[in-house]
Amino acid sequence: MPTAPSANPAVDTAAVAALLERGRTMSTPVLRAAVDRLAPPMDTVAAYHFGWIDARGRPADGDGGKAVRPALALLSAEAAGAAPEVGVPGAVAVELVHNFSLLHDDLMDGDEQRRHRDTVWKVHGPAQAILVGDALFALANEILLELGTVEAGRATRRLTRATRKLIDGQAQDISYEHRERVTVEECLEMEGNKTGALLACAVSIGAVLGGADDRTADTLEAYGHHLGLAFQAVDDLLGIWGDPEATGKQTWSDLRQRKKSLPVVAALAAGGPASRRLGELLAADAKADPDGRSSAAGDADGFSEEEFAARAALIEEAGGREWTAQEARRQHAVAVAALDRVDMPERIRAQLVALADFVVVRKR
Amino acid sequence: MPTAPSANPAVDTAAVAALLERGRTMSTPVLRAAVDRLAPPMDTVAAYHFGWIDARGRPADGDGGKAVRPALALLSAEAAGAAPEVGVPGAVAVELVHNFSLLHDDLMDGDEQRRHRDTVWKVHGPAQAILVGDALFALANEILLELGTVEAGRATRRLTRATRKLIDGQAQDISYEHRERVTVEECLEMEGNKTGALLACAVSIGAVLGGADDRTADTLEAYGHHLGLAFQAVDDLLGIWGDPEATGKQTWSDLRQRKKSLPVVAALAAGGPASRRLGELLAADAKADPDGRSSAAGDADGFSEEEFAARAALIEEAGGREWTAQEARRQHAVAVAALDRVDMPERIRAQLVALADFVVVRKR
Repeated sequence: MPTAPSANPAVDTAAVAALLERGRTMSTPVLRAAVDRLAPPMDTVAAYHFGWIDARGRPADGDGGKAVRPALALLSAEAAGAAPEVGVPGAVAVELVHNFSLLHDDLMDGDEQRRHRDTVWKVHGPAQAILVGDALFALANEILLELGTVEAGRATRRLTRATRKLIDGQAQDISYEHRERVTVEECLEMEGNKTGALLACAVSIGAVLGGADDRTADTLEAYGHHLGLAFQAVDDLLGIWGDPEATGKQTWSDLRQRKKSLPVVAALAAGGPASRRLGELLAADAKADPDGRSSAAGDADGFSEEEFAARAALIEEAGGREWTAQEARRQHAVAVAALDRVDMPERIRAQLVALADFVVVRKR
Repeated sequence: MPTAPSANPAVDTAAVAALLERGRTMSTPVLRAAVDRLAPPMDTVAAYHFGWIDARGRPADGDGGKAVRPALALLSAEAAGAAPEVGVPGAVAVELVHNFSLLHDDLMDGDEQRRHRDTVWKVHGPAQAILVGDALFALANEILLELGTVEAGRATRRLTRATRKLIDGQAQDISYEHRERVTVEECLEMEGNKTGALLACAVSIGAVLGGADDRTADTLEAYGHHLGLAFQAVDDLLGIWGDPEATGKQTWSDLRQRKKSLPVVAALAAGGPASRRLGELLAADAKADPDGRSSAAGDADGFSEEEFAARAALIEEAGGREWTAQEARRQHAVAVAALDRVDMPERIRAQLVALADFVVVRKR
C-alpha cells in the first residue's frame, strides 16, 4: 500500500453520482417527515436550512449539500450484509446531527453564507438558529431510538460519541483562532474531531443497525475517519483556491475568516523565506484586527483581492498547498486500506473506494 | 379528590430538605465527573455555570439550584423497588438536559442573571454558551447509553422525547412574546412543555432504569407533569411578586421581560375594568418598544419601580394572582392523585407527596 501516492485517483463518476443520488432519494423523504414533526416555526426554519423552501417560504429546489453521509450510511448497511433500507434511519440521524452542527457553527463563526444562500441566523435570527439546531440534534436521537432495538441503542451511543467529538472540534477551532501558532498535529486533531468523527459514524451506523459486531463497526469507522481527514484537507484547499461558482463561498473564503486551516498551518511550519514572510503578514493582520473572523463582519475587512492573492501565493510558495494535497492522498490511501480488514461483498468495497476517490478530487 | 383546594398544604420541611440533600449528594460527584470529560475550555465554562468556580476560575460554593429533579429521579428508582443508586445516571442525565436548556434559553432570552450570578453568555460569550449547552446535551445521552442496557435505551428515549418538548416549549415561549394575546390554554401548553416534560422524565427515569414497565413509568410521568405545572405556576408568581433576595432575580423580573406568564394571561382573560386597563397598558408598552424582552437590553428600559408596581397591582386586581395560586393547588392535587395509580412502598409515596407540597409553597 503506497502511503504517499503522488497522483489523484481516477474516479468512476457515474457510479459515484448514482450512489449519492440513491442516498438522497432514500433518505430525504424520511428526513422531511422527521423535520415535519417540529413545532412551528421550527419546521419552516429547518426547511429553509435544508433548501426545501426559500426565505419567503416558497417551495425551492435548493442545494442540500453533497449528501456523502447518507450514501455512506446505506453502503454501511450493505457492508454488514443487510439491505440498504436498514441504513436509512442511520443516514437520517447522521444528516440531522451534521445540520445541527452547521446551524450552530454558522452562528458561532458569524458565517453569513452557506450553499449559495444566507445562513439561518441571518434570515431567521440567532434564537431560531440555536433552537432549530437543538431540535435537529434531539430528532436524530429520536429517529434512532424509536426503532426500539438493541442495535438502535448501540447506534445511538456511537452517534453520541461522534457528536461529542464534533463539539470538541468546534471548541478547538474557536480557541485556535485566538492563537498565533497552531501545530500541524493540532490542526489534524481538530479536523479529525470536526469532520472525521461524523463521517466515521456514517460508515458504521448502517452496519450497526444491520447487526454488525463492534470490531467490524470500528474498522469501518477507521475508513470513515481517514476519509473525513481527506475530505477536510480537500475542503481546506477549496477554502483558499476553490472556484466560488462551485463552492458557493466567497473567493479566498478561509483567508477572509483567518482560518488556521491545513495549508496555512503547514506553510507556517515549513520554514524558509516564504513561510517567514507569511508568518509576519498574518501576525500583522491579527494585530491590526484582533477579533479576526469572530468580528461581527465575519471577515478581514478592507483587504483587496490582491492582498488575499498575495497571501495565497505565499502559502503555495512555502509548500502549504502541495503538502495539503499530499495529505489528502495519504489519508485516502489509509482509508482505502482499512477496507481490506472488513469482510464485505466486493461490489460494496468497490463502491466505498469510488466514494473515497470522489472525495479527493471533488471541486465543491 | 378535591380539584380546587383553597389552602396550601403543610410541608414536612425536614423530610424535603433531606430528600433534596440526598439527591444533590448522590448525583453531584457523577455530574462533576461527567463535566470533567469536556475538552477545555468547555469544562471550565460548565463548572462556572454549575457554580463550582467563579468567573475567574477560583473554586466557589455557588448555588446549584434547588435540585428537585435529582431528588425525584432517586425516588423514582425506589418507586420501582430498586435502590436509589439505580436512579443516579438518570438524575445526572436530567440535570444535564436541564442545564443545557438554561444555557441556551438565557442566551436566546438575553437574560443576564441566573442564581445571583452573571449568565454564561455574559461572562464567556455567546459561542461558549451555545457550545457548552450542546456538549451537556450530548453528555446526557452518553451517561445513559454507556450503561449499555435495554433499560438505558428506554430511558434515553424518554429523555429525548422530554427534550423535544422542552424545545417546543421554548419555541412557543419565543413566539408568544411577539403576540398581543395568548390564551390561558396556550400558556399552560407551553408551560407543560417547558417545565412539565422534564420533571415528568425525572420522575420516570429512575423507575425505567430500575426495570419498571411502561404503564408504571407513564403514570409516574403524569405525577411529574402536573407537578411541573404546579412548579411553573409558582415560578410565575415568584417572577412577579417574589423576593429578589430569595429568587436571585430582579424585582418584577417577568414584567421587565414582558413575559406572558400565567398571572398576566389569566388577568387579561378575566374581563372587567382592571383586566381591560391592563390590556391597554401592555399594548401601549409593546407599541413603544416592539422588541420587548428580545431586545439587547433584555428588559423594558425606562420604566420606574412604580410603573411595574402599577402593572402588578392591575394583574392582582383582575384576579390573575389568585387564579394562578389556585392553579398551582389544582395541579398539585392532580399530581398527588396520580400516585395512587402506582403500586409503590408507602414511604416512597409519602416522600413524593412531601416534594409536591414543597413545590407549591416554596419562596425560591
